[in-house]
Amino acid sequence: MRITNSTPKADGFYMPSELAKHRCTYLLWPEREDNWRFNAEYGQAAFKEVIQAIAKYEPVVVGVNKSQYLNLLEMNMPNVQIVEISNNDSWIRDTGATFVVNGYGRMRAVDWKFNAYGGLVNGLYFPWDQDDYIAPKMAAIEAVDYYHLTDFVLEGGSVHSDGEGTILTTEETLLDPGRNPEMTKEQIEEKLKEYLGAEKVLWIPKGIYMDEDTNGHVDNICQFVAPGKVVLAWEDNPEDPQHERSQMAYDYLSSQTDAKGRQLEIIKIHVPNPILITEEESKGVDVVEGTFPRRPGDRLPASYINYYNCNGAVILPVFNDPHDQAAIDTLQQCFPDKVIEPIYAREILLGGGNIHCITQQVPLP
Amino acid sequence: MRITNSTPKADGFYMPSELAKHRCTYLLWPEREDNWRFNAEYGQAAFKEVIQAIAKYEPVVVGVNKSQYLNLLEMNMPNVQIVEISNNDSWIRDTGATFVVNGYGRMRAVDWKFNAYGGLVNGLYFPWDQDDYIAPKMAAIEAVDYYHLTDFVLEGGSVHSDGEGTILTTEETLLDPGRNPEMTKEQIEEKLKEYLGAEKVLWIPKGIYMDEDTNGHVDNICQFVAPGKVVLAWEDNPEDPQHERSQMAYDYLSSQTDAKGRQLEIIKIHVPNPILITEEESKGVDVVEGTFPRRPGDRLPASYINYYNCNGAVILPVFNDPHDQAAIDTLQQCFPDKVIEPIYAREILLGGGNIHCITQQVPLP
Repeated sequence: MRITNSTPKADGFYMPSELAKHRCTYLLWPEREDNWRFNAEYGQAAFKEVIQAIAKYEPVVVGVNKSQYLNLLEMNMPNVQIVEISNNDSWIRDTGATFVVNGYGRMRAVDWKFNAYGGLVNGLYFPWDQDDYIAPKMAAIEAVDYYHLTDFVLEGGSVHSDGEGTILTTEETLLDPGRNPEMTKEQIEEKLKEYLGAEKVLWIPKGIYMDEDTNGHVDNICQFVAPGKVVLAWEDNPEDPQHERSQMAYDYLSSQTDAKGRQLEIIKIHVPNPILITEEESKGVDVVEGTFPRRPGDRLPASYINYYNCNGAVILPVFNDPHDQAAIDTLQQCFPDKVIEPIYAREILLGGGNIHCITQQVPLP
Repeated sequence: MRITNSTPKADGFYMPSELAKHRCTYLLWPEREDNWRFNAEYGQAAFKEVIQAIAKYEPVVVGVNKSQYLNLLEMNMPNVQIVEISNNDSWIRDTGATFVVNGYGRMRAVDWKFNAYGGLVNGLYFPWDQDDYIAPKMAAIEAVDYYHLTDFVLEGGSVHSDGEGTILTTEETLLDPGRNPEMTKEQIEEKLKEYLGAEKVLWIPKGIYMDEDTNGHVDNICQFVAPGKVVLAWEDNPEDPQHERSQMAYDYLSSQTDAKGRQLEIIKIHVPNPILITEEESKGVDVVEGTFPRRPGDRLPASYINYYNCNGAVILPVFNDPHDQAAIDTLQQCFPDKVIEPIYAREILLGGGNIHCITQQVPLP
């Protein structure tokens, strides 16, 4: 049932860390031809690899439009459930429910307002009506009540929680005029605290260079590997525009403490070399007015930080790039008990995001 | 995941009685205008009453086509979850999964083949493609594997299980040429035993008079109120065609023992007086070639036996008929600890079934 007269914080609920134990992972099946080249055939193959990698470690639920249901059902993948969830695109990190728990075995969901990354100001596609109902559908399948916001736009990929009171976000996304232009930074911070059950919000200035789709989501530049410890997308070359962005994030995070008063330990993971959209890749995408274009030569916002933590593994995007191995090694050191599962993810990146963007965890309450 | 290389019986699973404790009840939301008069407005009101009555006693999940999702979501009913399940009509007793358990906390589903009550021979509507995928969708939401049959047509409303090895069915439905004409009665019986984990099948000859939609489903004429004890739809008047059908059922059941060797105790519940479709009711239904017509003056297959057992109550169709009270009293005697919830159900009957037909239980494994 929909809850509108209270907030998670008021009711004792908070967003656990992605590292806390999961019941399952949700994904949505890619389909739209104005974003996924060649009728999404390549994108679907990449998503399938991600689904199967996660399903080795925890149950997976894949939501799909009616039009693609049978295609997916017939794959009959072990530990994977196929449910109908009508959608405009497949970024469930951003459109899906954020689950909150109370530490006493109960779970609820948060249903943020979604406007396709900027609505009529600078959104990526139109309409986004189906995407705005993905959260209540997930809550229904998980049989939990949900907090429904009508006055606050947020994508899940623009916030991380350490599960101990600290939220990571970026000013670039949350202060963008396409989300909540009538709200001050302080008012936005208050919403995050109320609906994520948190005490402190850390505001990294900017996201990854050219992450124009999302206006710089935090989940492409920085992520907790433990409370008090983050990995940060890094670029050594001062000539590369990413360098300044990474340096700003580093400087900011070095100057802050978290909700528990801890100084943050910052581990750098170098980004891959610049990845540009090819002529061939661009021409496979239908050009539609109102949908974000995929032009040849455009640089893609590639980063290893957009990995996904599942129960026993890290599902890591790699790019056949000289920096792949360092990312694998660094994350293996961060998570000595987890398997690192690298997946070649250029195809997901071409759609505008990566593995973290296409996954959403349901915690074990 | 789909299981095709085994059967419930081989794996130690069986269909529990509807009287066993439930996790929840599923319904589908009525919509089609060639079956539910006046754009299904009246039908939806009746379904809503049933949903809310059940939700007082156990969680309810309502599956809905995308087109009606927001209508239902906005009702925001307590203890009711709204999920997308594309469907051709709303008889989830017949189209939904049959859940089987193993007595050790595990559950699976059975996904029968569905052909709209007779396929191209004497089916009720065309196409029925969405209805044939309701079972795997329910299994997915319940996060259980499902047995998938491609060679055997069955509607859930044509079988009852006492949970102790006995199945009740009717010859009229299961031997109808629109289901499995290539199979003998013995082969059909074998399928029921294998997929319902049963030992014995009791074959009542015929269902309710004029139950032409379903060709005489058992769930309109007879139901277990306990192992070894059934209620039977009865008609005293020997001039009424229902009398002979009820008498045949009585005689057959009196001559049989169940899987445990028990003689069956038979309790009669008199049917309501004949209910005919009015001019006004008929004209609200779109007339479409290939869909079963609702003609003025046609007698409806009204029966109190099409009630639904939920955890603490019996949801009972009533008809503002002089026989209503006797049905209520008899069922209250059968279930002294349950609440009898009578619901005026003419509108559901007009669509071709009643409360049992529009509900499907998920047992607590």
